[in-house]
Amino acid sequence: MPAATGPQTAMKSLDATRVTISSPSDAEVAEKIQYRLDHLTKPRGSLGRLEEIVMQYGLARGTAKIEMPRKALFVFCADHGIAAEGVSAYPQDVTHQMVLNFAAGGAAINVLCRQNDIDPVIVDMGVNHAFEPGKAIINRKIAPGTRNFLHEPAMSREQAVRSVEAGMALANAAAHLKYGLLAVGEMGIANSTSSSAIAAAISGRPASELVGAGTGVSEEQQKHKAAVITQAIERHRPDAKDPLAVLAAVGGFEIGGICGFLLGAAAARVPVVVDGFIASAGALLAAGLAPAVRDYLFLSHESAEPGHKVMAELLQVRPLLALEMRLGEGTGAALAMGLIDSALRLYREMATFESASVSNRSKT
Amino acid sequence: MPAATGPQTAMKSLDATRVTISSPSDAEVAEKIQYRLDHLTKPRGSLGRLEEIVMQYGLARGTAKIEMPRKALFVFCADHGIAAEGVSAYPQDVTHQMVLNFAAGGAAINVLCRQNDIDPVIVDMGVNHAFEPGKAIINRKIAPGTRNFLHEPAMSREQAVRSVEAGMALANAAAHLKYGLLAVGEMGIANSTSSSAIAAAISGRPASELVGAGTGVSEEQQKHKAAVITQAIERHRPDAKDPLAVLAAVGGFEIGGICGFLLGAAAARVPVVVDGFIASAGALLAAGLAPAVRDYLFLSHESAEPGHKVMAELLQVRPLLALEMRLGEGTGAALAMGLIDSALRLYREMATFESASVSNRSKT
Repeated sequence: MPAATGPQTAMKSLDATRVTISSPSDAEVAEKIQYRLDHLTKPRGSLGRLEEIVMQYGLARGTAKIEMPRKALFVFCADHGIAAEGVSAYPQDVTHQMVLNFAAGGAAINVLCRQNDIDPVIVDMGVNHAFEPGKAIINRKIAPGTRNFLHEPAMSREQAVRSVEAGMALANAAAHLKYGLLAVGEMGIANSTSSSAIAAAISGRPASELVGAGTGVSEEQQKHKAAVITQAIERHRPDAKDPLAVLAAVGGFEIGGICGFLLGAAAARVPVVVDGFIASAGALLAAGLAPAVRDYLFLSHESAEPGHKVMAELLQVRPLLALEMRLGEGTGAALAMGLIDSALRLYREMATFESASVSNRSKT
Repeated sequence: MPAATGPQTAMKSLDATRVTISSPSDAEVAEKIQYRLDHLTKPRGSLGRLEEIVMQYGLARGTAKIEMPRKALFVFCADHGIAAEGVSAYPQDVTHQMVLNFAAGGAAINVLCRQNDIDPVIVDMGVNHAFEPGKAIINRKIAPGTRNFLHEPAMSREQAVRSVEAGMALANAAAHLKYGLLAVGEMGIANSTSSSAIAAAISGRPASELVGAGTGVSEEQQKHKAAVITQAIERHRPDAKDPLAVLAAVGGFEIGGICGFLLGAAAARVPVVVDGFIASAGALLAAGLAPAVRDYLFLSHESAEPGHKVMAELLQVRPLLALEMRLGEGTGAALAMGLIDSALRLYREMATFESASVSNRSKT
């Protein structure tokens, strides 16, 4: 990696990564995977979406000899200036308090990572708090929170690029550490407002259609949230075709980090499980920068936020689970990683019709 | 248990179990569970259906102090005379071949049980094969397969009762062995035809609306399958309000076993995860015999069979997963057990707002 980190160099690094991402399309690998799937002791196609998972995973990795992957889940955390507009049910302090809870192992994501043998990695992309050294928190702080995007851009374009690049570098590091399945989650009070704004800016849909309860605001507060977003988009008018402009105008540092992480992982051909609403906003930006990134994504679940359906449509990716969750952190992604694990194990461990002496033939 | 096993005694035993099943409704337990759920470090209700799982599980067990349950999955296996009508894509021999595959650990269900720390239990309720002693197969064979229900009742009423009672006894044994979460799956060539017939008999809907591809028959074969069912119901006209009559007319021994297992488990207050289409047919019969059994059921997934939606509506239970699976064995149930495990671990292991010093208050 170059020593200089000015915007020009960073742009180059980002652009260099973008062009290396392409759709995996090895017909021989696809044929080998399908052959094995069709000869396992089960009716053809009867594992449904688990078979799709195996195919997507194997193609992304470029091999029909799938190994059980080492798994890590990155929780990108940051604060948001827009929280000052009263768009969240919780005070901003909860961001850093929850980051400490992650580091101490007491949050939902810690429980699910322990259950599913996933290494959790906590990344401070811009939390408004100086964490004591020695905590298990990776410092990639761009600034102690974004600006209030109702009044000014959330961040400069240079900060947007730096946040994306920081995420890319973390994905590179994870690929070098031989993680074969990654996931992204997040924490940041008010970041469902930022994510709804990103979805509104990219889709062109009215904010009122996209905004939901977030962590639990009232119907009146949701209207306020939508009005804030509408006003902000009116003010900044970011170009929907320029993801970095959208990120700078109404985004968050953790969302930029997620965007970059997805790009870096796709470039390294490591599939990533995207958590929920906020992580999907990062995925939307990444898909804008490199459309083929979608082939390396699993969308873990359909969030309870109404805007998530719009995001899934734009991403052309179908969620795996629908459990009405709206917690974030990566909790949906951790559950989906368990499912992906199941799919890969079935592919690796099941007997074939031949090995188990089971008849594989139609009566007719 | 009485030594005599004639139909009269058996009926008594079944009736005795039916009356002991009641809806759990301990307001104090419910309040305690809700209190803890609301004080874990997450927005209230944000774990969505995972919180519903915790509540249902705790109420069924009658305690807010939930222990991580020992898990077992029972695979009920049997052959079907109706297979002679060419309703399945596979020959009848596949039933016993797959049972041997289960015993050898090579089937999909074995892989998923290993992953999710579930003890698989294989039960021969009526497979048309004499298994060598020493195999890990529990012998509860009622007969070597049902009769062809196109021409005569699948079984006698006495056989129906015996199959239900055998399932009940297995659930009792599992409860005594301190299993805290059970599941039911199945294997039996042509049993999706039997299950569709049960759904048609109970719902009164035309078979053509309920029949699907099963393990993979063509559209023409599906029409044939529906015609066979329609003809059989015309012939036997079982009383929709008499589950044992429906079971005897068009059922299967494994479906009777599942029905009894659900009753026995509910009587012992052990929740059971119901696999897919065929297991749900057993659940329909059980709910007909004791409606409160539903409070002890988790419906694991929405099967690809069209009739499964009708069953879920009749059972008034929402499936947890929708992965387009149609394999049976208990594969959907094993995946759902992983989810239930997640829900219970979150309830037990997450920090509270107080213990983690996280603010739990609205800004407004």
